[in-house]
Amino acid sequence: MASISQGEYPPELSREEEQYLLSELKDWSIAHGLAVRPAPSFVQPSQDPSGVLATTAPVTVFPSLFPRSCFEEGLAIQRAYNELYSAIARDEKWLQGIVEELIEIDDFVGKLWQTHLAVKKEGYVQDLSLGLFRSDYMVHKDPAQPDATPGLKQVEFNTIASSFGGLSSQVSALHRHLLTLDAYPSSTSSVIKADALRQSKSASSLAKGLAVAHKAYGSSRTGRPLCVLFVVQDPERNVFDQRHLEYALLEEGGVRSFRLPFGETLSHTSLASDQTLIYTPPNSPSKSFEVTTIYFRAGYSPDDYPKEEDWTARLLLEKSRAIKCPSILTQLAGCKKVQQVLATPHSPHLKRFISNVEVASRLLTTFAPIYPLDDSEAGKEAKKLATDVSSATRYVLKPQREGGGNNIYRKAIPPFLEKLPPTHWPAYILMEMIEPPPLKNAILRNGELQRGGVICELGVYGVCLWRDGFGDESKGEILENWEAGYLLRTKGDQSEEGGVAAGFGAVDSCCLVEN
Amino acid sequence: MASISQGEYPPELSREEEQYLLSELKDWSIAHGLAVRPAPSFVQPSQDPSGVLATTAPVTVFPSLFPRSCFEEGLAIQRAYNELYSAIARDEKWLQGIVEELIEIDDFVGKLWQTHLAVKKEGYVQDLSLGLFRSDYMVHKDPAQPDATPGLKQVEFNTIASSFGGLSSQVSALHRHLLTLDAYPSSTSSVIKADALRQSKSASSLAKGLAVAHKAYGSSRTGRPLCVLFVVQDPERNVFDQRHLEYALLEEGGVRSFRLPFGETLSHTSLASDQTLIYTPPNSPSKSFEVTTIYFRAGYSPDDYPKEEDWTARLLLEKSRAIKCPSILTQLAGCKKVQQVLATPHSPHLKRFISNVEVASRLLTTFAPIYPLDDSEAGKEAKKLATDVSSATRYVLKPQREGGGNNIYRKAIPPFLEKLPPTHWPAYILMEMIEPPPLKNAILRNGELQRGGVICELGVYGVCLWRDGFGDESKGEILENWEAGYLLRTKGDQSEEGGVAAGFGAVDSCCLVEN
Repeated sequence: MASISQGEYPPELSREEEQYLLSELKDWSIAHGLAVRPAPSFVQPSQDPSGVLATTAPVTVFPSLFPRSCFEEGLAIQRAYNELYSAIARDEKWLQGIVEELIEIDDFVGKLWQTHLAVKKEGYVQDLSLGLFRSDYMVHKDPAQPDATPGLKQVEFNTIASSFGGLSSQVSALHRHLLTLDAYPSSTSSVIKADALRQSKSASSLAKGLAVAHKAYGSSRTGRPLCVLFVVQDPERNVFDQRHLEYALLEEGGVRSFRLPFGETLSHTSLASDQTLIYTPPNSPSKSFEVTTIYFRAGYSPDDYPKEEDWTARLLLEKSRAIKCPSILTQLAGCKKVQQVLATPHSPHLKRFISNVEVASRLLTTFAPIYPLDDSEAGKEAKKLATDVSSATRYVLKPQREGGGNNIYRKAIPPFLEKLPPTHWPAYILMEMIEPPPLKNAILRNGELQRGGVICELGVYGVCLWRDGFGDESKGEILENWEAGYLLRTKGDQSEEGGVAAGFGAVDSCCLVEN
Repeated sequence: MASISQGEYPPELSREEEQYLLSELKDWSIAHGLAVRPAPSFVQPSQDPSGVLATTAPVTVFPSLFPRSCFEEGLAIQRAYNELYSAIARDEKWLQGIVEELIEIDDFVGKLWQTHLAVKKEGYVQDLSLGLFRSDYMVHKDPAQPDATPGLKQVEFNTIASSFGGLSSQVSALHRHLLTLDAYPSSTSSVIKADALRQSKSASSLAKGLAVAHKAYGSSRTGRPLCVLFVVQDPERNVFDQRHLEYALLEEGGVRSFRLPFGETLSHTSLASDQTLIYTPPNSPSKSFEVTTIYFRAGYSPDDYPKEEDWTARLLLEKSRAIKCPSILTQLAGCKKVQQVLATPHSPHLKRFISNVEVASRLLTTFAPIYPLDDSEAGKEAKKLATDVSSATRYVLKPQREGGGNNIYRKAIPPFLEKLPPTHWPAYILMEMIEPPPLKNAILRNGELQRGGVICELGVYGVCLWRDGFGDESKGEILENWEAGYLLRTKGDQSEEGGVAAGFGAVDSCCLVEN
């Protein structure tokens, strides 16, 4: 049986092979909750007003090839990344400098900062903070140097609402199941094999993070039963991703949790006089709970705050004694501006947070050069690169805000900047495009199979629980810190956006190959 | 907190209670594969040509109340039922008598019997036989005697394609999960409580039955890898029910299986010269498997045999060395005529198969009186009862064939018989209606919540592996025999048909109550 080369991966499927593979995939995914609620373009809400239909989550048919050394390095440095971002989140003064650069041009950052200041003014009542992080990378291989070893370059670091940890465990189990069934053509047997597939432990490991915070909160101050609060968007098509964490938290950690749509926060929560956060389930108004941990799966985007009351709600949650996942400072630490100042060539910032030179050097290796669009020396250089069509083709322009959706790529950058008032330029950063090696795969979405070139993004989850010294760093300490599994997210290389939930990508798992 | 009485169960839900309960139910069910493919009336096939949509299986919102003594008796006597039907299946001569009474009027029974005779003529090559049975009951409480202890009365005994074992495990886990979440109003806390809910182990236990048969087959005779073959209908909306067995068989038993649409049998299977059954997966024609066990989830209804080749296919499977689940004789043992002759008052048949008087007496207690519509003494009495409107209201007329869908109830019986030529009357049996105590529940189906009176049917699964003596009963022996969990199936009491998949019922679990 001839074995295929990486360049031929994945192989063409005969009609019968495709039928078998897809039939197994479609049934296994629903049987195991690797699912999403269907997009309105697929099922009109009027057809299913109560929302009982579900469909297979957008998923790759094959596990994508991924260099083993890059995968292992990504997992290995996650604890250092947790440490770095925890240190940034504890350094209010340093973050203030970052925020001050953004506040004029990014209302959302300004509102977050004001909310933080209001909490500070009243006095902090909770010194523990939880991060469920995800560091996203792409494999970079300089097209001009085909023999160079591939490296991992960071795309972004998520400090709030890091998603797909629930589905990621399922998709790696799916690909393993398909291998067990010999559903992949035998020509792939030297590539897709048990020791090349990596099971992601993300659902269980992230849930364990919530359970650890829940326990660290201590005993109830009000005599009420304790709970974790998932603050969510409503409606949420990617609900099963979140549910898998909730079920793992209950089954493996024994911890109750509730889903609270962010917009309903003020209706169902209140603060006791000592800032203890009380949640009253609408279905059971006579029975209220004391919240140990707030897990934000909403609140990361300006779209989550359509009303002024939403800021009141965020303030209420932040003022509370519950452990925040994340706190506002942690959320702000995830600003692209932070990534930018760390990754600006010759930046002095990284060593402020990571004193171990060797660790700092490993982190640095994963940074792609990032430039500000401001009046600094690096900023001036960046403006030249961004406005010149020939150099702009190697860059991407990204807004500082979270959430994606508005990146400007390559040739589109100069005309975009031309229309943008220069005072707004600092709201963006310029990042050297990462050049991933060419890959192919097939993605199943809404029942349609799309084949072709793809780009993969590796997300490594991290859990970190720390104590904040509130300016006295001798009191700050990391209590828990672990790497928490991975996500591979794959999109067609024609699209320049990520985000499976937004309809542009698919969940995937790694099939490790030697470089 | 006032506790409700059984008569008030389930309680009315406030809007918020209902919203919470349904939201939890809808998400949990999809996350755990308690699902079906949507009915064409809900999602038109043209909208989802590749079949990726799924929906929550029709399910009760509350676990239905069920008398504890009846539940425990049903489980306790399942091993005796397994023994009974295994003994019947081994008694070809006795079954021949049954078949001869039906053969003139039921072509399907005739074709099955001819297929059996053709196998016999060539000589049996496999003496092991597997039954995955389900004995279905209703609770009977004479309306004229309100203080009488409720008893369990058998509705039918399924010897082929006993369904819902996969979903039943999930629905009992769902109801338990909802209890854990306090999703049921606190007024139910004295009724819905942990020790009243019964987890069904059916998926795992039925899969273990297939694994035991697979192992009993012995080693490969052809050097090919071994597998179990699920012979299925295509398309199959209730596919996740079957998939849960398949996944349990693989994960807990380490046994590979394949799904073969019954209509494609001749394309993908063949017999070696020694009658070993070879299955060649269409996706991998160069790799064939030796089939140890054929699990029929199709072939039980005349509708499964639209072409003459379908009988050729059944003959091929029956002639093979694979263990059949069930064999044709076991399938015929499930004829309603068999149930009828066993349950005909003063019948001599039961003691032919069950020599232990005490066991026979316990089985007899679960029989509802069943009459033939033939020229026997009991038959003559039955004809009087069936044609008189006043007495017919206590009866149901059932065709001898499997599959349901054509029962005639109460007042409809006399006019039905009037139109039926008397020579066709013996194709039916007359059964005293079981009078279940009035119950209420709410059923979620296609996103709609239906509340009202319901009728519950308890199905108890049984696994039995035996060796056939082929006429020499001293060589026949039961090798494995266990009770394998349960199903509660609930339908609105306005409908007089069962069958969740057919759209008339819902899967449910038992909330045990003292009588």
